Amino acid sequence: MKNKARSFFNRTHISFSTHGVCWPKGFRSAGMAAGIKKENALDLGLVVSDFPASAAGVFTRNQFMAHPVAYSRDVLKKYKRARAILANSGNANAGCGKYGKAVVLSSVQTAAKLLGLRSQEVLVFSTGRIGQKFPAEKLIRNLPVLISSLKIKDALFSTSILTTDTMMKTASAEFQVDGKLVRLGASAKGAGMIEPSMATMLCFITCDAKISHALMQKALNEAVNQSFNRITVDGDMSTNDSVVLLCNGASGVRIINDQEKGYDFFRQSLIHICRSLSEKMVEDGEGATKLIRINVSEAASEKDAEEVCRSIGNSMLLKCAFFGNSPNWGRILSSIGATRAKFNPLKVKIVLQGKICFQNGEPDFEAAEKLKNRMRKKEITIDVTLGAGTKSSFLVASDLTYDYVKINAH
Amino acid sequence: MKNKARSFFNRTHISFSTHGVCWPKGFRSAGMAAGIKKENALDLGLVVSDFPASAAGVFTRNQFMAHPVAYSRDVLKKYKRARAILANSGNANAGCGKYGKAVVLSSVQTAAKLLGLRSQEVLVFSTGRIGQKFPAEKLIRNLPVLISSLKIKDALFSTSILTTDTMMKTASAEFQVDGKLVRLGASAKGAGMIEPSMATMLCFITCDAKISHALMQKALNEAVNQSFNRITVDGDMSTNDSVVLLCNGASGVRIINDQEKGYDFFRQSLIHICRSLSEKMVEDGEGATKLIRINVSEAASEKDAEEVCRSIGNSMLLKCAFFGNSPNWGRILSSIGATRAKFNPLKVKIVLQGKICFQNGEPDFEAAEKLKNRMRKKEITIDVTLGAGTKSSFLVASDLTYDYVKINAH
Repeated sequence: MKNKARSFFNRTHISFSTHGVCWPKGFRSAGMAAGIKKENALDLGLVVSDFPASAAGVFTRNQFMAHPVAYSRDVLKKYKRARAILANSGNANAGCGKYGKAVVLSSVQTAAKLLGLRSQEVLVFSTGRIGQKFPAEKLIRNLPVLISSLKIKDALFSTSILTTDTMMKTASAEFQVDGKLVRLGASAKGAGMIEPSMATMLCFITCDAKISHALMQKALNEAVNQSFNRITVDGDMSTNDSVVLLCNGASGVRIINDQEKGYDFFRQSLIHICRSLSEKMVEDGEGATKLIRINVSEAASEKDAEEVCRSIGNSMLLKCAFFGNSPNWGRILSSIGATRAKFNPLKVKIVLQGKICFQNGEPDFEAAEKLKNRMRKKEITIDVTLGAGTKSSFLVASDLTYDYVKINAH
Repeated sequence: MKNKARSFFNRTHISFSTHGVCWPKGFRSAGMAAGIKKENALDLGLVVSDFPASAAGVFTRNQFMAHPVAYSRDVLKKYKRARAILANSGNANAGCGKYGKAVVLSSVQTAAKLLGLRSQEVLVFSTGRIGQKFPAEKLIRNLPVLISSLKIKDALFSTSILTTDTMMKTASAEFQVDGKLVRLGASAKGAGMIEPSMATMLCFITCDAKISHALMQKALNEAVNQSFNRITVDGDMSTNDSVVLLCNGASGVRIINDQEKGYDFFRQSLIHICRSLSEKMVEDGEGATKLIRINVSEAASEKDAEEVCRSIGNSMLLKCAFFGNSPNWGRILSSIGATRAKFNPLKVKIVLQGKICFQNGEPDFEAAEKLKNRMRKKEITIDVTLGAGTKSSFLVASDLTYDYVKINAH
């Protein structure tokens, strides 16, 4: 890794890779089986910065926000800094009333004490089943072991936050500013993600640049909007969805304002990391066999473009059709028509896998036949032109399969 | 049937049964296999009134309304009368451009000529796949046979409009006004109906009272709003959804204004028939094994109550959980929280199968355990109290199963 980083020193652009939260300088992590999940699976993780760090975050807007998320959001809003992220899978600690809140406080206080940090420097996140009594004693009892196993390696941490995910999800980037290397690394989870309303997504991003909370938050908002929000319905998230970014300055690089080249690299890196992870979530969607890219352009407004994207991407009929390799573009037409987006049906163009199926009010009756083979591909692309304006949007979705039902029924 | 009707003469209320469109006087119907569907299945149907009839209708708001629906809606709006309903399954005749429109016109003109009616007296409806070339010649060629087989029986007609439905859907009612019997009968289809956005629903209702278009339309709007709209998302319907009512006056009963007892019977009959058929559609939902009744009360507005109903009823996670008999009430909590409805989470009460799972901000951690057996029932009831006002709404939904995926993938 060191050689790779060195060779990069002479280049002026950003280099992307798939390392996790320990890729930037000054971050360590750990993961263990604390018994929150059954069968000795990894379920408790910790990321710690060796230096004070600025923090930014984007959180679910679910009105039944989980207790740890509400706590961490409030702490982050007040202090704008954090050095440790404690996360568990197997129990969402949501809808658990006073007991759930007490679990958060005791976890944070114990972790802070053992780490030698102030309690406001510890954030806490959970994912798993809602309304289940959290086995707090298991978490508390295992914290010393967890902390003693902190290393500059992310595999155990990245695994400990997974639930129905079938693979670890990490992404990283690096770039240089004035000859100094800056790195970003991220570990995420999300697999019930036909859209985030369906299950929790967590994403923890680390960076070794020094940068203000305001600039971090600005770049993070933009990145989330271009990625995780493109696989979700706004305001329609799970109780636990969270994206958190820590910047500890260990690289010696300082980013002061949004006009700098460094800021642009930072911003682009964040966007790339979030997009990469969001697509991994869709690919790893519960039971998913296809990645469906939906692009809507020439809309009267961005809202219209988004509404059409989501009407198509959330159609159970269409998701099933794609699972079955069916070139049933008529279901795309019906999904577009079901929206309140402004358009003239005679100006709408529907392109499936590069093949024009419908335009100028007329179908290609042979389109389905011609598309048969192209529908077997793992990636399906739908391009819709509304002919009503200049705005556009996109959405990435998965198909709906027997395995999705199986995973969620049992 | 005659005896049953006679015995009813002495009663003053409404009697409900499950007859179809030929139950009222002066209606005949027919159904046949015209080759639109494969494998010689019934796919072409006709209902004819022996007398001039007033007509009312409620149609999909899909912007890609199917050609026959757009035609029939316009004719009905202009003339407010109709004597014949021609319907087919196996091809939706939607998204078919000029060809699709030409098919409608030639079908209507041929049927009108053969029936000795004016073309504006013939309405036409289709259900099936979108964007497929309609085999017009098969329809036209078979019209004489279809017309010659018209009888005072609805079984063939009621079957000819089905697609993935596993059973015929009919409902009827009768009541008396001034000693004279009035009957209503209906034949419907709908099975992809996790909600109507997912597939077409058609419902044809006949009645032998004489009643003005305006009064018919008023009662029909109310009935649809209390039934088919409670299993759907407003403005989110298929290209072909249609509910049509014909009243031919053959009973000799005239209903003149909405203050009469007769109008109230008529209205109640319509509501009952539409509710009964809409629940049959959910029960017969593609692959469905459960009927889920969602009741939301104490909402700040009716819109809020509806939004919460739909957020719960459309949650794929929840639908899968119910299929698996899982008492996972946490997913109900998450679905409520995902809406923008106004409420204080501490005032929300969630009751599943009669068991309080969450109230005053506190969960019953034992609820899931206690609910295990109750979740095996065919009917699941969810009662949500928002504690934010006095408005309420309800929704009837089905579960999500392997068979749903199977039916729609292949």
